[in-house]
Formats: sequence, structure tokens, C-alpha cells
Amino acid sequence: MHAGSAEQSRRKIAIAQMGGPTAILNCSLHGFMKEVQRLDPSAVIAGVFGGMAGLIEGHLKTIDLGRSYDWLKITPGAALGAGRKQVTEADLETCIGHLRERRIHALVMAGGNGTMLACQSLSEKAKELNYELQVIGIPKTVDNDLMETDHAPGFASAAKYVAHAVRDLSVDLESMKNFEQIRIIETMGRNAGWLAAASTYFKRNEADFPHLVYLPERPFDLPHMLAQAEDRYKHNGYCVIVIGEGLKDRDGRPFFKPAAANGERGKPNSRLLGGEGEELARTISEQLGVAVRYENLGILQRCASFLVSEQDKLEAEAVGVEAARLIFGDRSDLMVTIRRLADEPYHFEIGHVALAKVAGIERLLDACFLESDGGIRDSYRKWLHPLIRDDPAVSFTRRTQRQSNLISSML
Amino acid sequence: MHAGSAEQSRRKIAIAQMGGPTAILNCSLHGFMKEVQRLDPSAVIAGVFGGMAGLIEGHLKTIDLGRSYDWLKITPGAALGAGRKQVTEADLETCIGHLRERRIHALVMAGGNGTMLACQSLSEKAKELNYELQVIGIPKTVDNDLMETDHAPGFASAAKYVAHAVRDLSVDLESMKNFEQIRIIETMGRNAGWLAAASTYFKRNEADFPHLVYLPERPFDLPHMLAQAEDRYKHNGYCVIVIGEGLKDRDGRPFFKPAAANGERGKPNSRLLGGEGEELARTISEQLGVAVRYENLGILQRCASFLVSEQDKLEAEAVGVEAARLIFGDRSDLMVTIRRLADEPYHFEIGHVALAKVAGIERLLDACFLESDGGIRDSYRKWLHPLIRDDPAVSFTRRTQRQSNLISSML
Repeated sequence: MHAGSAEQSRRKIAIAQMGGPTAILNCSLHGFMKEVQRLDPSAVIAGVFGGMAGLIEGHLKTIDLGRSYDWLKITPGAALGAGRKQVTEADLETCIGHLRERRIHALVMAGGNGTMLACQSLSEKAKELNYELQVIGIPKTVDNDLMETDHAPGFASAAKYVAHAVRDLSVDLESMKNFEQIRIIETMGRNAGWLAAASTYFKRNEADFPHLVYLPERPFDLPHMLAQAEDRYKHNGYCVIVIGEGLKDRDGRPFFKPAAANGERGKPNSRLLGGEGEELARTISEQLGVAVRYENLGILQRCASFLVSEQDKLEAEAVGVEAARLIFGDRSDLMVTIRRLADEPYHFEIGHVALAKVAGIERLLDACFLESDGGIRDSYRKWLHPLIRDDPAVSFTRRTQRQSNLISSML
Repeated sequence: MHAGSAEQSRRKIAIAQMGGPTAILNCSLHGFMKEVQRLDPSAVIAGVFGGMAGLIEGHLKTIDLGRSYDWLKITPGAALGAGRKQVTEADLETCIGHLRERRIHALVMAGGNGTMLACQSLSEKAKELNYELQVIGIPKTVDNDLMETDHAPGFASAAKYVAHAVRDLSVDLESMKNFEQIRIIETMGRNAGWLAAASTYFKRNEADFPHLVYLPERPFDLPHMLAQAEDRYKHNGYCVIVIGEGLKDRDGRPFFKPAAANGERGKPNSRLLGGEGEELARTISEQLGVAVRYENLGILQRCASFLVSEQDKLEAEAVGVEAARLIFGDRSDLMVTIRRLADEPYHFEIGHVALAKVAGIERLLDACFLESDGGIRDSYRKWLHPLIRDDPAVSFTRRTQRQSNLISSML
């Protein structure tokens, strides 16, 4: 070994970005790097390149801290590379081996409940192998299906995108109802309806759009939906329907027949997630005899840099900073959390929770936000508001754009 | 009749919004209304509600000019209602009948080359029926397939959306290449590649994304495309492919087998336009053995109010103003145009052209913007730049976000 003892005593911390990226995930990386440098300018940050696959394959590289990384604050995606990967017991041992080899005793991973489970498993495996390892999780998911935190960074930007996209797509359809009568808009969210519910952010009353919203939290009943859609279409001349991607039937089975498993390298398929609405659009068109178009909001929900929430950016940075502080405070087996202290004016504080309380546990949309008929309560919009509050300069309200406001009289 | 002679002598002008809406179409309506009021405060503006179908059905209503219509400047869609409709000779006569009944001798219609053909047909039919009628066209199309104008209002905002969306989707895929290797992104544009080509706006060199762009102007050759995609995937580990919706084979036939005709009320189908990329994604996945995802940029291209071009808004307003001036100048059978005087600093002036020179004629992407191999020349990005120039506050360049910039050394 060429390195002297000074070199060997430098604190080394590995950081990884897991699962799907978000539009503001790199803010957490930025906050983490800045705080590590502030706390110990001699510390070494090892980037895990390529998410869990990268950790298993030992793709760890030293991050050059001599440069400016302000670009991270405006760049979507995962600067270190992310990706999904199932982990075996053997993989865990391999990961610990890579860390041991490089004398890295601290690991920070940003991700959702699956990542927190991986954090916990790695920590346990390290103990089993008598390797000293601190593990800290940074919350990150557009689906917001993570327990013990008011919300997860990444969600607010995705929710803002959904709210704006659904409003614009609804106004567009209203203009085109001569030509197209029903639009099905599909959001992300996995098994949770947080994002689908965010489509109602601009909704001011029951008659407003989106007219119908179906969440995975409630059993999806096609005949009931057809009746509701027909009713709304007959009343308005058009109908905007939002569906979450993970709709289930009364027995809790996926409503749409599951396609091939998710893709990993070398396993060809074109089904990664979502896309169910196409089939639904066809069914509605056939049953109601109207033109129906399917719009999948797609990957832009998690990567649109042009509509991020400033609050989300700020909080993503803050959870990254806190992860560094927990490492330097010699803490382990924790996930950083956001605690809401007040709605209006909004106040939050950064906290943390034991990994065991969040690892692998899916958080669905809080029942308190749902009407008994599945509608989304105003309390949800009030909860959402401080996270995605609108820029008044680009805002228009539903009320002002009604055609009827243009009309003085029949000619 | 109750109205006196003063009432009868008030100038009445009808205005319609045709075809698909755009994010800034209502700016043209706003400019038109403002200018009419300035030129003749006693003039009556008759809104045609519901596009061509509305005109045929006689849905004309007086617009109340006593209110503020500033909301039109930030509201996507067509405030009067739009829609697509084939017009018969009998329909033309019906339309003239409705105008005659209301003593409306001036008609302004905003639309694309199909709408300009309808303008021309209505003007000819009026002459045939000895009804005095001025007809003026306002250019409007996200596809930019309209002759004799440097570009059409609506295009710039759609192009800005495509440029940003493709950049963000590309950065996202780069992050996820462990998991998903090829992303097919489909744009609007009908038979013209203007919008698909706009996806290269942020592209700085040949290796940059989007890696491959296929336009309807060039015959689409699947084996060639597979070879190119494999090459890029092997080189980068991932590949971003953009396709225009109207790809054709070597014989000029649609490459993807055409689905049902476009929907009109009561004719059920789920194929309105686009969606071809799904089939292509499946084929590539099978042939190359990698995970491929299809993203249709969809209707947000024409209605995203959160990413409009300010230049586009300004020009949309200006063509509306000019339409009013041409009416008051007793002109007819003209379409308003935008003439580019200089690229940098950008200067334009408003002009007009005979309807006959644009009616029903499709303008493809200018050949001067294409390399012989189908690549998009820098000259196109230079042409596009003043129309969609980026807000530096939300901009990131491709260069700065490369993973390699993060790395100091292997650990």
C-alpha cells in the first residue's frame, strides 16, 4: 500500500442514488456533498455509480470535490446513475466486501421504501460480518409511498407536474369536445394514489375538472366507472378521467392484466410500468360510443426540470445536509424525515426515524384525505398547497376560462 | 325586427378557432378583440363557438366586450371551442346562410392549411351566392406545416416543450441505463418534421442526445434504424430515439399500419393521432434484446401553459391584431404572415399573403435544414433559437451534467 496513515485515516463516505430518479434528486446529493465538505474538508466522498447494481459490481469512484456542483441543483435524473435491482443475500455480502476493500465505513443511500429495506439489510449484513458500517437513508420517491415522513422529496415536483398537466389537458379537451369526448390521463404512483389525487389541485368544486379520479386505494369497478363517465359526458359534453397506474379490482388483484416483469438489462420487454389506460380507453370508447383518447403522463412526471417545486428543491437539499450530519454524529440505521409543523404559513423541520419503521413498508394515501365515495377532500389540496404552490404569473383559474364568460347574447 | 338603423349599421365580425388548439391560440383572439375595439368601439364581435362544426350549426354568439379578457393571454385551449371537421359544399352554403341571417360580412378564422382552404372555399361560395363577405385567416398550427410564413404561431411553444421534454427524458434515461436502455419519444407534427427536429435544440454535437431522430420527410427504414440504434446503444449504454408521428416507408406509405379514421362524435375509436411508437418499441426490444420504453409526448405539446414561448405569445397577439386591421382595411382572401427580418437580434414584421398560396398546401421541413443522411443541421437550431430561447434560470447544458465530471479517480 502506498497510502500513508494520514491518507488512511481520512473519513470515507459512500453515497448512492437508488430506484427511479426524480427531478430534484441531485439537490440531495448537492446538500450532502456541501455539508460533508463543511464538516470535514479532508473527507472523501465515494460515489456509487449505477445504484444498487453499481454497488454490487463495485463501481465506486472518488468524487472530485474541487469543482463547482451548482449544476446539480437544476439537473434532473441521477447524476451518479440509479436503477432498480433485486438484491440477494450473496449480493449483500459482495457489497460489504467492496466497502471493506476501500475502508469505507459509512454509506448513504437515497431512495424509497425498497431502498430503505436494502439499507437495513446491508446494515445487518455488516454486523453479521463484523464490519463497522454506518447506514443512513435519504427519502426520495415521486410516489410518496414512504412512511414516517410528511412527504418524500421528489413527490412535490411530480405532484406539481401532474396538477398543471391535468389542468392544461382538461382545458384542451373542453375546447375540443366536438371532436373528442373523453380523455383518460394516467399518472404514476405505484400502489398509492398520492400523485393521481394531486390532479385535483386546481379543482374548485364537484363540477370542475378532472371530473373523475380513480385511485389504487379503492377497488376499481368498471361498470360503475362507465356509468359515472357517461353521466359526466352527458352533462358536460366531455369528461376528464384520471387514473393511478396501480388500479386493483375488488379482490385486490391488478385490474389490468399484468404484462411481463419489469425490464433489466438483457431481458427484452416494453412494459416497464404504467400504460394500463390504453385498454381502458378502448373499452370506454366501445361501450359509450364516443371518441376517447389515452394520455400517459409518463416519465416527465419524475424528470421535468421546467416545473419543479422550489419547496421540494429546498427540502431535498436539506435532507442531504442532514444525512451528512447524522454520519458525522456517528448515527446509523436511520432515515432522514420531514416533519410538518404548520400548514399556513408552512413550516417544517428535519428529523429522522429508525430504518426498521420504513423499510419495505408501503404508505398509501392517508384515508383522512378521501371521501367515502373515493373523492379527494379539500383537506388534501390544503395539505398539498405549500408543497407545490403556484407561481401566480403562470396561473389561470378554472373559473375565468369558461366559454360562458365570453358570451353576451345569442346573435 | 326590433333593431333600429344604428344597430343595423354596426359592423359585425365573426371569429372562429379551428382544428386543434395551441397553448397560445387565445392570444390571437385577445389581440383581435382588442384591436377591433380600438378601431371601432361600436363593432360587434360574433364568436363562432365550436370551430367549423359550430359555424355549420350556427353557434354564433355576441362576445361581451365590456369585460377584461387578460385571462386569454395565459389560458391554453380554444376559448371559443375548436375541433376538426370535413366540410361539404352543402355545409359551405349553410355557413353563408348563418352569416347572412345575422348580417355578418366579415369572417376571421384561425387555423392551419386545412382551415385556410375552408376560408378560401367560404369566400368563393359567398361570391357564388352574391353575398358580400370578407375572409381573413390567422395562422395557427403546432405542426408548422403552413406555407408563406416564417413559422406559425403555436409552433414555437410546442417546439420549446419538445426541446425541454426530450432533454429531461434523455438525462433521466442516462441515469437509468442499468435498467432501461432505449427510449423512443414520439412527437406531433403530422407529415412534417418541424417538431421532431426541435428535439435537437439542446444537442451540441453528434454524440449528444437525442442520439437518433427520424422525420417523416425521409423514408423510414427499420433495418437501418435497428443498426443505428444498436450502434449507439453499444457505444453509450443507452440510446434516445425521437420519431415524428407521420413516418413513411420508401413508397411514401405510412410506416405504421393506419388505425381507424380520426374520431368524430359518435364514431368510437381510440386512435386520434400518433401512438405509433409503441409498436416500434416492441420491435426494437425483441430485435436487440434490451429494455425499451415508449414515451408519447402527447397533447401537452399543444397545450402546456407552463412552458410557452414568450415570443410565440407576442406573435400570436400580433397576427390577431393584423387580422382586425385587414378587416377594417376592407381586405379579403388573405392570411396574415410572419416575416423574419433577422436572426440575431431577431426581428420580424407582420405581412399577409393570398389564401390561394397557402390553402390546403402542406409545408414540410425545409430541406436546407437537413443533412443528406437525415440529420438536423445547426442552421435549424439557429433558426429556432429566437423563437424558443431558453430562460437561463431553468437551463442546464448537456456538458455540465456528465457523470464523468463528478469523478476524480477510482477508489
